This record gives sequence, C-alpha cells and structure tokens, in this order.
Amino acid sequence: MSEATNAFIEQNQSRFLNELKDFLRIPSISTLPDHASEVRRAAQFVADSLKNAGLENVEIIQTARHPLVYADWLHAPGKPTVLLYGHYDVQPPDPVELWTTPPFEPVIRDGNLYARGSADDKGQMYMHVKAVEALKAVNGKLPVNVKFLIEGEEEVGGESVAKYVAENPQKLKADVALVSDTALYAEGVPTLCIGLRGLIYTEIEARGPARDLHSGLYGGAAPNAVFGLVELLSKLKDEDGTIQIPGFYDDVEPPADAEKQSWASLDFDEKQYLAREVGSSALTGEPGYSVFERTWARPTLEVHGIAGGFTAAGAKTVIPARATAKVSMRLAPKQDPEKIVAAYKKFVREKTPKGIETEVRVLSASPAILVNPDHPAIHTAARAFRDILKRETVFVRSGGSIPIVGDFARHLKIPTILMGFGLPDDGLHSPNEKYKLANYYAGIMTVAHFLELYGQ
Amino acid sequence: MSEATNAFIEQNQSRFLNELKDFLRIPSISTLPDHASEVRRAAQFVADSLKNAGLENVEIIQTARHPLVYADWLHAPGKPTVLLYGHYDVQPPDPVELWTTPPFEPVIRDGNLYARGSADDKGQMYMHVKAVEALKAVNGKLPVNVKFLIEGEEEVGGESVAKYVAENPQKLKADVALVSDTALYAEGVPTLCIGLRGLIYTEIEARGPARDLHSGLYGGAAPNAVFGLVELLSKLKDEDGTIQIPGFYDDVEPPADAEKQSWASLDFDEKQYLAREVGSSALTGEPGYSVFERTWARPTLEVHGIAGGFTAAGAKTVIPARATAKVSMRLAPKQDPEKIVAAYKKFVREKTPKGIETEVRVLSASPAILVNPDHPAIHTAARAFRDILKRETVFVRSGGSIPIVGDFARHLKIPTILMGFGLPDDGLHSPNEKYKLANYYAGIMTVAHFLELYGQ
Repeated sequence: MSEATNAFIEQNQSRFLNELKDFLRIPSISTLPDHASEVRRAAQFVADSLKNAGLENVEIIQTARHPLVYADWLHAPGKPTVLLYGHYDVQPPDPVELWTTPPFEPVIRDGNLYARGSADDKGQMYMHVKAVEALKAVNGKLPVNVKFLIEGEEEVGGESVAKYVAENPQKLKADVALVSDTALYAEGVPTLCIGLRGLIYTEIEARGPARDLHSGLYGGAAPNAVFGLVELLSKLKDEDGTIQIPGFYDDVEPPADAEKQSWASLDFDEKQYLAREVGSSALTGEPGYSVFERTWARPTLEVHGIAGGFTAAGAKTVIPARATAKVSMRLAPKQDPEKIVAAYKKFVREKTPKGIETEVRVLSASPAILVNPDHPAIHTAARAFRDILKRETVFVRSGGSIPIVGDFARHLKIPTILMGFGLPDDGLHSPNEKYKLANYYAGIMTVAHFLELYGQ
Repeated sequence: MSEATNAFIEQNQSRFLNELKDFLRIPSISTLPDHASEVRRAAQFVADSLKNAGLENVEIIQTARHPLVYADWLHAPGKPTVLLYGHYDVQPPDPVELWTTPPFEPVIRDGNLYARGSADDKGQMYMHVKAVEALKAVNGKLPVNVKFLIEGEEEVGGESVAKYVAENPQKLKADVALVSDTALYAEGVPTLCIGLRGLIYTEIEARGPARDLHSGLYGGAAPNAVFGLVELLSKLKDEDGTIQIPGFYDDVEPPADAEKQSWASLDFDEKQYLAREVGSSALTGEPGYSVFERTWARPTLEVHGIAGGFTAAGAKTVIPARATAKVSMRLAPKQDPEKIVAAYKKFVREKTPKGIETEVRVLSASPAILVNPDHPAIHTAARAFRDILKRETVFVRSGGSIPIVGDFARHLKIPTILMGFGLPDDGLHSPNEKYKLANYYAGIMTVAHFLELYGQ
C-alpha cells in the first residue's frame, strides 16, 4: 500500500483507539427497548465519524425501530463503487457478573481491547471509517467511490435495513459490498468467508392449566406447561443432534469436493477446540461429519433459552401454567426458509402433548449465502489481505448468519466480501468480548489497501 | 354434644367472630423478613387466647426463626391426651390488586369471611381454642388432657416445629394429634383425610460449554445445556406420565378396595373439574387410574420451573452454558424416599447426554402418610363429624404433603386426625381467600364434640 497512507495510519493509532473506546462506551443494545436512546446516540456517533472522515451526504435515516446511517463519496468517475456495511448495535452483556471488567468500560489487557461490541461489530465497522479517513486525508480524494450503510438492528434481525435495501436499489447501487463482521481463521491467517448459514429464529409458548396449580392437589391429572414444552422440544432432535422434522434435510446442498479438501488442509486441533473454545466434556453433533462441516455446512437446531414456573431459591410446588423457549435453526445453502418454517410449525402442532396448547412466533427467517470465490473483487481482497498479513489468504465458511449479504445479492445483485479481523476466541455474544488491537490496526491498513488496489 | 356446650357456643358466636377478625388483622406473613414483628405479634395473640381459654403453662418458645406457642391442660387423669396443632402464619397476599377488599381487613360477604389466613389456617386453628374454651367455661374442666402446639413457619417449610417435635417427644406425648388445615370434600360433607403423599423436592443443574457460545459459530459441535436438560427431563416420564426411573413403582401400595369403592361413590364431575379447576384443554396422567387415584394415591413427578439461556424479549443466538430445573416427586405409601432419591440420582447420571454435566440437589424428602381408618380416635372423629353435620363422614386422601403429620408419626408414634372445615374453593394462597362462617361455627362444635366423645 502507499507509504503515505501507511504512515498516516501508524501515526494516528492512539487517536483511532480513543475514538473507538468512546464508541464502545455507548450501550447500544438493540434488543432492549429501554436502551433505545443509547442506540440513537450510537447512530449519531457513527454519523459524526463519517462526516469527520470526509464523507458527504451523511444521513441518519429513521426506521420503524433503530436508525440507519448513510454517507457517500462519489467523486471517482470511471472507478468502481464499494458499499461498506457494518452495524453499531450490540448484544446484551448478560450475565454481567461474569465480566472481569464492566462491558461498557473498554480496557486494554494483554494487547486486547475488552468491551461489548469490540469485535462484533463496532471495532470492525470503525476500521472502514478510519481506512477511508486515512485515504482522504493523505490524497485529498478516494481511489474508488464509496457508500456507507450502517445499521442498528443487526443483533435483532435487521428488519429495517433489509426493507431499506429492498426499497432503495438505485441509491445503494455498487459493484461489491465489503463487510467486516467475521474472524480470521486463526491468528495471522488472512481469511475470506464465502459461505454463511441461514437463520430461522422462533419462540414457542406452551400453555397448560389456566393458572399455576398446587402440584400436590393436582399432580397426576393436570398438564404441566413446562414438562409439555420439555417433551415437545426433546422430539425436535435425536441424541446425535439429527433434526427430526420431516423433510428438513431434503434440499441441503453439500459443499463442493474442492471446498471440503481445502477445509481438511486447515490447521485444526479438535482437542484444543474442545478444551479452549467450547470447554465442555465432549463435542456433540451428527456422526460422519467433520467439525467444519457440522458448524459451516450442516443445518442445526438450538434452544437458546427456556423459562417457566418457579425458579427462585428454595422450593415451591406449582404446576406451571405457562412456559416459553427460544428456538432457532441454522440453514444450509438451498434450504428454503419458508418451506422449513412451515414444516417446523406442522411438527410442533403435531407433537404438542395432550392438554397443552402451543404457539409458534417466527422472529426472522433468512436463507444461507454462498459467494463465488472467483469473482474479481474477491481476488483483489485476497491480494490486499496477503500483502498486509504476509501470508496466503484462505477461503472458509461461517456457521453464523449475516442476512444483509442475502439482501445485497437479492436486491443489488452484488457479491459481498466478508473480510473480518476477529479471532475465534473473541467471545462474541459472551462475557469478556475482546478485539485484538493489532488486528484493529491491521484491519484499517487492509481495508485501505483493498480500496487502493480495487481502484487501480 | 352436651346442650350446655352447644348453647355456650351459640351465645358466643359474635364474640368468637370478632376475636378471629382481630387475629386476621395481624399480617403475620412468615416469608417476609420485614414482617417478623407482625409474626411475633400473632404469636402473642395466640398465647393470650390460650390463657383466656383456661389453658395452663402457656409458653412462647423462641426458635431460629419464628416462635412456637405451647400450652396444656393435663387434669383429666386416666383420660387420653390430644395434641392440637395449627399455624398462625400466612402466605403473602400478592397480587394485592386482585383482592376485592384488603387482605388484612376482614369482611363478611355472602356468609363468608374474607381475609388472608381466614381458612389457612388462622380461622381453623382458632376453632380449637374456642372449642376448648367452651368446654372449660361450661364444665369447669376438660373431658380429656390437651396440649396445644402452634407454629409460625408452616408456609415457609416448618423447620423449627420439626426440630422441636424431634427434640421434645416426652413433653409432647399424646395419644392422637388433631389438625384442622384441610377442607371438606364438598359443602356439608363431613370429611376426614387419612392419606397424604410424600414429597422429594430437588434441583437439577446442567452445564455444557464453559460459557455461552455463539450458536452460529458453534452450533452443530458444542453441547447445549438447555437442550441437554430438556433431553434428560423428557426421559423421566413417558407420554402417559408414567415415571421411567427403574424400580420407581416397586413399593407403591395401592389403596384398599374399600377405599377405592368409597372414592367411586364421591360426587365428582370430571368435566367440571377440568373446566373450573384445571382450565386446560385435557387432563393428563396414567391410563387406567381415576382422577382420585392419580392425584391421591399414585406417585407423580413434576417440573416446577426451568430456567436457562436467553429469555428476554427478542432474539439472542447463544448456546447456553447452564440450565436449571426444579423437579419433585410425590410419593405413594410404602415408597422409601431414600431409595427413590438414589434411583433418581442414578437415572439422572445415566441419562445425562454426552457433553453435559449434571448435578442433583435434594432440598427435602419425606414419605407418604396413611392413617388407619379403624383407629379408635378416627372412629370417634367420624362420629363427632356426623353428629354435627348430620351426614355420613367420608374418608379421602390428599395429594399434598403435610410434613408435621410425618413428624408426629415418627417422633411421637401417634396418628393424626385431619379434620378440616375449609371448602375446595376457599382460595388458599390466592387473592380473596375466604372461610365460610357457618363452617367456622360448625368446626368449633365438632371439635368440642369430638373432645367430649373421646373422653368418654
């Protein structure tokens, strides 16, 4: 990359860090209604940052829920246009008592920046802003046209941005999207993610008796909403984790042989993965599939939370009237979310135990994504990555779901470069989320370098 | 009963009512630490009432938590001794907004006395005091020896009274215990409860990954503590409610044919029970057993509450590290709590899914109680009941557990007469608890008459 840009980024590291810390201090938890004003404050912070970086047409766009932030710089005629996407909202920090330091008071320990949102996604999104700022400051202009679209609902389904993309294809027209919301395969390994699983997120509510009943007086005759829900949920998967919904696996597309071979060549120690990352006594999952296949290419079903009845300290002998669970399914390429939702609802209806009523609420549903690794922008991104990290770029998938990538493909007809700088142990959505500082700076460099190369 | 006693009780009805109202005005909520002084005030009220009734050796006994009240009158040599038990503490009144009139301002509506504790158990306990007072006032002496033991922790586990009974068998020596803390089977039907189920109350904790994990990144390989607990719990019972723990039913003693026949003769409308009491779409339970058998004589297993993972509004995609459930078993006569606890723990250990660790904590374990209906004191109680209510006495069981009855059996080697005057719709532990006034007066008569007959 240009030496001047390089020098600018190095000279401004401590300012770039302090600004990010200010950003991380805003508890922009999108799922909590009483944090709405904090979410708005984070949107304003993003808008101000974009203005300061030299972007134009900066807008805070009101939506049905949390605002979007848009900005652009379109003075590179004949050059391609890059759509830079990120999100400024974060997951709740619970359980707060497991954090070593408070989630919204960023601190550095051992070269890592600890805070909720440091890696997912404030720290990564902010790299884009700083890369553009550096290029603009050094050259007075940018090597390509850029559009920023930053949302505040990524952690709660991203409905507003999906609607906005669908309704504004002309305004958002671009050649490629760049998203930094993923991780390096391992420390120092340039990694482009070309596949994402889809996600269907639901709630199931089970109701039994009209009110909580005394379990001594009614136990043996009255249905129990908690046990009814437990029975129902237990039928969704067998002991191996194979989902029991009829037709669920019909359209699952397996990875190409070349992809599977490349995964087999990745450095992976299952024992270490179990001990250091997962921390349980054993791994689980479908027999006959590698961990990569199980977490990147196979569909799954998880219960994220369950609640019902008496759960305080001590003993209370009630037959609970009501219980709820959060249940999601990750989808493989080619699985149709609508078809799966219908099969899931039918299964729940048919397996609901006697005496229990159930209701399924679908919170979101989006398909899996697969990007063509031979697209020119992907090639350029791989080169930029290699130039900065000095190693060959690897292509992986992620088991996670980034619905916006599907929206960009569907409505803007463009591929997305998933160029993330997190690390596998960053603790996204967990206590003590962190982001490696060196990766923050390397990310700014790589993004700037990619934009330079892509403009040549 | 003697006409003089009868006349005394009738002439003093309004005074007996006013005194009970004063008693009910004391908010002696045992579970709330900031109500401890009110609980003490209620103990003092009981002690004063006993003194005024002519009892001797009245004591307020301090314990680790709330005081016991003891009193006796032992001047009937050659006559049996009756131990009268009751409790002066009450449940919290929440939700207060659902009460038509304030819970601690007793009022009469439609022949019912509305107040927290009116039926459970102040109103019923106070009948004993008034019955003894009437006999003493009319005859100058009592037909039997009596000992009162009144506690203030019944609604919070009754630990202090259990300890006191275990440590003072000589002081509490008696031939039979009399407890009025149950209900008539229906309006006007003299009812003696001769069976109570036992209770084992436990908590199960399940642990999976070391911390909550991102379900996109780890779903398919990492064990899920909530799903693991769900799988485990679902194995404890089959779809009919039959408990799957090996050996669980080995020692279950079925009710005698005579008992079953008498239950079959009770007025019972299953449709009305389902619609008015349970309020679910169907009843559940073991096939081939009546509702009475299922709720009175068969053991059961219930999950009272479950908690784990993310349960707030919205979507969070975690694989939970931890989940807990409260699980109890009601025991039938002859089932040994220790043996059942061991079988239960073994089952949980063996059925814990791969990758999950479970821990079982036993909070309490007490056996079922069955009183011999041919015991002379039970015969006498049935006769007293029939004489006052002018109908044949029925013998029922309750599916609930009254641990003090087990303590009396174990430490004092005496049976307990469960002679209650509540009604099934009194709303114990609920808003608008009531006690039918006619039953309060009939209860005083019946208890006095029982003591007269038992002394003959």
